[in-house]
Amino acid sequence: MFKECFDNVRDKSPLVHNITNYVTVNDVANIILAAGASPIMSDEPEDVEDITSICGGLNINIGTLHKSSIEGMLRAGKRSNELGHVVLLDPVGAGASKLRTDTALDIAKEIKLDVIRGNISEIKTIANGSGSTKGVDADVADKVSEENLNEAVAFAKELAKRLDTVIAITGPIDLVADSEQCYVIRNGRKEMASITGTGCQLSGLMTAFLIANPEDKLKAAAAAVIAMGAAGEIGWEHMKDGEGNSTYRNRIIDAIYNMDGEMLDRYADYELL
Amino acid sequence: MFKECFDNVRDKSPLVHNITNYVTVNDVANIILAAGASPIMSDEPEDVEDITSICGGLNINIGTLHKSSIEGMLRAGKRSNELGHVVLLDPVGAGASKLRTDTALDIAKEIKLDVIRGNISEIKTIANGSGSTKGVDADVADKVSEENLNEAVAFAKELAKRLDTVIAITGPIDLVADSEQCYVIRNGRKEMASITGTGCQLSGLMTAFLIANPEDKLKAAAAAVIAMGAAGEIGWEHMKDGEGNSTYRNRIIDAIYNMDGEMLDRYADYELL
Amino acid sequence: MFKECFDNVRDKSPLVHNITNYVTVNDVANIILAAGASPIMSDEPEDVEDITSICGGLNINIGTLHKSSIEGMLRAGKRSNELGHVVLLDPVGAGASKLRTDTALDIAKEIKLDVIRGNISEIKTIANGSGSTKGVDADVADKVSEENLNEAVAFAKELAKRLDTVIAITGPIDLVADSEQCYVIRNGRKEMASITGTGCQLSGLMTAFLIANPEDKLKAAAAAVIAMGAAGEIGWEHMKDGEGNSTYRNRIIDAIYNMDGEMLDRYADYELL
Repeated sequence: MFKECFDNVRDKSPLVHNITNYVTVNDVANIILAAGASPIMSDEPEDVEDITSICGGLNINIGTLHKSSIEGMLRAGKRSNELGHVVLLDPVGAGASKLRTDTALDIAKEIKLDVIRGNISEIKTIANGSGSTKGVDADVADKVSEENLNEAVAFAKELAKRLDTVIAITGPIDLVADSEQCYVIRNGRKEMASITGTGCQLSGLMTAFLIANPEDKLKAAAAAVIAMGAAGEIGWEHMKDGEGNSTYRNRIIDAIYNMDGEMLDRYADYELL
Repeated sequence: MFKECFDNVRDKSPLVHNITNYVTVNDVANIILAAGASPIMSDEPEDVEDITSICGGLNINIGTLHKSSIEGMLRAGKRSNELGHVVLLDPVGAGASKLRTDTALDIAKEIKLDVIRGNISEIKTIANGSGSTKGVDADVADKVSEENLNEAVAFAKELAKRLDTVIAITGPIDLVADSEQCYVIRNGRKEMASITGTGCQLSGLMTAFLIANPEDKLKAAAAAVIAMGAAGEIGWEHMKDGEGNSTYRNRIIDAIYNMDGEMLDRYADYELL
Repeated sequence: MFKECFDNVRDKSPLVHNITNYVTVNDVANIILAAGASPIMSDEPEDVEDITSICGGLNINIGTLHKSSIEGMLRAGKRSNELGHVVLLDPVGAGASKLRTDTALDIAKEIKLDVIRGNISEIKTIANGSGSTKGVDADVADKVSEENLNEAVAFAKELAKRLDTVIAITGPIDLVADSEQCYVIRNGRKEMASITGTGCQLSGLMTAFLIANPEDKLKAAAAAVIAMGAAGEIGWEHMKDGEGNSTYRNRIIDAIYNMDGEMLDRYADYELL
């Protein structure tokens, strides 16, 4: 089912423009390469329009903001929109500071986004901040669990509808929703949270999947979430005595490097609600 | 003895605000996660006050300075002081350039620091630059050795007293001193110097230890130094044929991931002078 | 033949000033350390002149440009020239955006460069942009291959003569040329292209080789290319089941850590045209 999504990434080798934080940028580059795509990083306002023009899509991650990179994000996003490129927003830390919240909301307002991918807190911040009512999401808890799953799915679909974008909420259970459908994904391992940047890596990887699969962005986004989760499972199987989060980071990227579409389907653990 | 210091980190999962260099920032984040704490990175002046407010302490590392990050350091430090948070300064390269020396001295003057952690050259720069006399430290050599140990301990205590902060001098022999006492620590391996950022990692880790152990900062700082040194020893034991400094970096962080308070006490090689 | 070039790096431990991108900077630092040299990173205009003064040479990499870092590159380069230090330019992405192309050309015009190291597209951009005629390089294809080798060698020598610098073009076949001679090097593996930053790492490593071997820069540059290629071959030999590009990155740096001059000569696969 998801096989062709990954095959398309390897076949088309999409070029991904990343404006991302300096903490996890190297791992983002390496996981994009591991999947057979190519990364370019550029955040300087005077450089981003040229760079995004030669790429197939744009990954905006607000993990470490600078005034000039915020301008870079907006300029790159607008140019991407003009060119009909895919744009993904990873609103890292939205809700944790005014600058991050405002920047995420500005980007969501100024730029047509194909996917917003974050954890539940970040996505709730987007939902609450950009709307006039807090109704639908006021009841969504801080973690998606089996107990609040139906509510969370409804929240994700509603927000996807309101913002006209795919919403990807990652955590112990991952949700990838448009206004009609929601993939509920149970791949991955809890130990992935002990590595910095697995979320950032997923956003980079997902942008590559979106570029390579323009005809079905919901499915492409879900395929990327499954790929990352499967890599977490495969990487963990390779862990040896004495190894910990730093080696696990390498083993996850290595697992993407060795993954193909058939493995993705074999590992996929999901339902469509 | 140091067991509870590490246990407190794992129990309390302190949130550490890092304004640190872009060279080693990923390893700093991963070692903080390895210890069971959580890192946040933010250096933009308009973002740092909000971010530091939700954290338990601040790690300032001047390894790659920008004009805006210097402003960020000062604003974050002042806000942390207002909130009574722990603040650590890692004066990377103080003495190597005017900007680094001036910035380190400015921070030491403007912000109440709980710990200054650096190598002997950096700490001597702080000592010489901020005082009117060069007397006490004029005789301190460029490396702490068994031969000049008493002198170096006296220098560390004196500086700790003068600046009213814990002084941590790391190198072949590590010293962690307040005005009264000095831990002399002989953990670690010389091969750690062939990895970029073991010092930066220690500063991040130490900030987590300080936040989790507010009642005894001297001991908390010493515990972090011992943890890092022990990780260097354990990581080296796991090295395999053909491996070198890049894999060693991972193995050290992995060792922190697998370490607990009892191991820390078992590995601790120190005296209190 | 190349043995003494590597031995000189280990003996002299040159200090390398790097103004480089934030994507691969950590790996650049670790590979310089692996070779027995020392890295310092600084790009702030107010810091770079002091820092470059205490180093033996300067590695300028334009992989992620900021307005302030461009000023830093020019100031550091000019100071290095005044001091007679080695300066290397890695024109990452020249040709991909106006800012990158202009910056690379400005640096090549304003600063006396000892080596320009890039892929064939980047070097062609330098050649076309800076000259009034496109004659000599118009026929050079986008990849150096056995079929167009003689043409490519002639192009490299011509450009080296015109710009009075060593030209290093890396790819499936590597060329290192001055106006008279060209090393054609066939070390390395194609899988190195699946790691971000092997080119950036080579530029850092090469700067260390150049500083340590001032009497023969052409040979020093070729030795660094061979060392990197040999490390790619040795690192691959150590790859285990399930490992991929992220671990390969570590194994390449590890291979440099364990390499000595004799190994370099044993692995060297080159001819001099």
